[in-house]
Amino acid sequence: MITADDLDDFAHRDWQHVEAGEGPVRIAVVGLGWWTRDRAIPAIDSSELCETTVAVSSSTEKAEDAADGHPTIEHGLTYEDFHDGTGADAYDGVYIATPNAVHPQYAETAATLDKAILCEKPMADSVERAEGMVEATRETTLMIAYRMHTEPAVRRMRELVQEGFVGEVVEIRGRMSQRLLEMFSDPDQWRLDPDLSGYGTSVMDLGIYPLNTARFVLDSDPVRAQASMSSVSEEFNEVPDERASFLVEFPENVVASCAASQNAHKGDRFTVIGTEGELSMRDGFHSSDRRKLELARGGIRTAIDVEPVDQMTEEFDYFADRVLRGERPHPDGEHGLVDMRALRAIYEAAERDEPVAIEA
Amino acid sequence: MITADDLDDFAHRDWQHVEAGEGPVRIAVVGLGWWTRDRAIPAIDSSELCETTVAVSSSTEKAEDAADGHPTIEHGLTYEDFHDGTGADAYDGVYIATPNAVHPQYAETAATLDKAILCEKPMADSVERAEGMVEATRETTLMIAYRMHTEPAVRRMRELVQEGFVGEVVEIRGRMSQRLLEMFSDPDQWRLDPDLSGYGTSVMDLGIYPLNTARFVLDSDPVRAQASMSSVSEEFNEVPDERASFLVEFPENVVASCAASQNAHKGDRFTVIGTEGELSMRDGFHSSDRRKLELARGGIRTAIDVEPVDQMTEEFDYFADRVLRGERPHPDGEHGLVDMRALRAIYEAAERDEPVAIEA
Repeated sequence: MITADDLDDFAHRDWQHVEAGEGPVRIAVVGLGWWTRDRAIPAIDSSELCETTVAVSSSTEKAEDAADGHPTIEHGLTYEDFHDGTGADAYDGVYIATPNAVHPQYAETAATLDKAILCEKPMADSVERAEGMVEATRETTLMIAYRMHTEPAVRRMRELVQEGFVGEVVEIRGRMSQRLLEMFSDPDQWRLDPDLSGYGTSVMDLGIYPLNTARFVLDSDPVRAQASMSSVSEEFNEVPDERASFLVEFPENVVASCAASQNAHKGDRFTVIGTEGELSMRDGFHSSDRRKLELARGGIRTAIDVEPVDQMTEEFDYFADRVLRGERPHPDGEHGLVDMRALRAIYEAAERDEPVAIEA
Repeated sequence: MITADDLDDFAHRDWQHVEAGEGPVRIAVVGLGWWTRDRAIPAIDSSELCETTVAVSSSTEKAEDAADGHPTIEHGLTYEDFHDGTGADAYDGVYIATPNAVHPQYAETAATLDKAILCEKPMADSVERAEGMVEATRETTLMIAYRMHTEPAVRRMRELVQEGFVGEVVEIRGRMSQRLLEMFSDPDQWRLDPDLSGYGTSVMDLGIYPLNTARFVLDSDPVRAQASMSSVSEEFNEVPDERASFLVEFPENVVASCAASQNAHKGDRFTVIGTEGELSMRDGFHSSDRRKLELARGGIRTAIDVEPVDQMTEEFDYFADRVLRGERPHPDGEHGLVDMRALRAIYEAAERDEPVAIEA
């Protein structure tokens, strides 16, 4: 039966090896959009192993505004200051949360300054730029910010799959959607601008969740993609994928059927179906307070209301744990690059209207 | 708010126009597999407008065994007797539940005998044979047995979509799976034999549920298919689709992402995601007692535990209602033919490894 330990250990940080209080790893946050201000900085404030000491943005005012009144932020820098190495003694790592296309330039500067790097996903706007970034950051720690890797529901799913809970995996289903224009009404926002976002918007920003989570849970990399995309609203006319449905083939005859839309009712689900059972996470990608893990095997079903950890706190502490131990994080640059190649193949499949192999 | 009437009317037979007690439409059941014996005949026994009067099978013994002790079955016939018109005065309609490949021959005999026809889905093993069947049955009533058309949860979903509950439909997701060899251990069963089943097994038998339900809910026909299929177990080596994932494109940029497997943990789900909301039916395809309709719009979610009507009783009474009124059923031969063309395109897409247009 389910034991007390099963529930007690559900959200246990099985990945943490460094004691709370070691460090801290001092972080420069690069890019001060809503995500950094509302999610990342508060998450670091709650973390055991990190603190924010530097804020970097387009203007001194914006950066100093973030620093102002914050207990640990010592410097507000412009991007130019950052590239010049100003205040580099004040931080050990950088968190990059700028538009996709400019991730690499901050990562490259950080590498030059010998700083560890936590970069938002997707790691860049194109495969080529991501390859350059991997090359330029070889001498430092580069982690791509896949917060599902430290989400307890996903880690437990992964363990259950590895232990044979679902039998042989048959298929994966995953989707994520939101109303981007209700979150940010500006039609000129970077996520709708291919020069800043990359191949598109919905798959780059949301479809990457089921794609990468499938890779993580299967511990396997995808080999081929098929896709159908369309943009129907005027605000989406620069990108091909207001709506996207795509099939990603993995080795051993497992296909992940995914969908993503930046203009659909907010929701997400990720399901692994095997010969003997099924696991399904609801609302994990959106880190909703209602997230749930559903388990089924034979005629029996159960559901676990997952303790809503702060996914960003978990992610920052995982990053810091790896930095403090000098160990490579699981979602490193090479890992992120596989997603970039899969993303390119998905967009190409839709564009060329045929299945496209994912470069290994 | 949700009213008492909303719940009271949930399972109301909005399609029924004939009073209970009219008729009955006397049915000859053709093919006495488990589905007919365990599901169809009991469902007709419970119906308001039908009764089973004739049982047709491969041998006199098998047919008479079904008739034996049954209160309304007057005749047990062989297939040969049936083709000869024996006992034709004793029934008004036929229910065909034989392997797919032989549906057309019984339908054609029934048409010759001027009987109404309720034929299991898929209506035939191939598009060509389905076209012949439509041609041969023009003078009578032909209904294809899509029990989702009279499942209350699906009818309410359809109304909700038409009333704009989800806003504009963005995407559809649907899947159905079961462990065929645990249901019937014989590896020589007809569902694994392309000569009897048709293009394959999982999409023909299970994938047709999300495909047809998408058509019914959208009130629209599909235009193109992409697919990925594989068979990994020895028992499935004659069919291409032990596992199948497929994308079916509908007009207005709506894609249905579907999956089906005859060798995966039993389950089904059908979801419509729109710009403003989401509707999801669970366990409806398998007619489980646990079926549920989940509704979400904005931040609000609710779920209705659906009163488990006998889907087969509903289907037979719908058929009888249309026969008694001399009205064409919604899922007629032409309707079934669209699915056959879509099924062919799905299998061709997997075989040819490219998107395939669905013939209109």
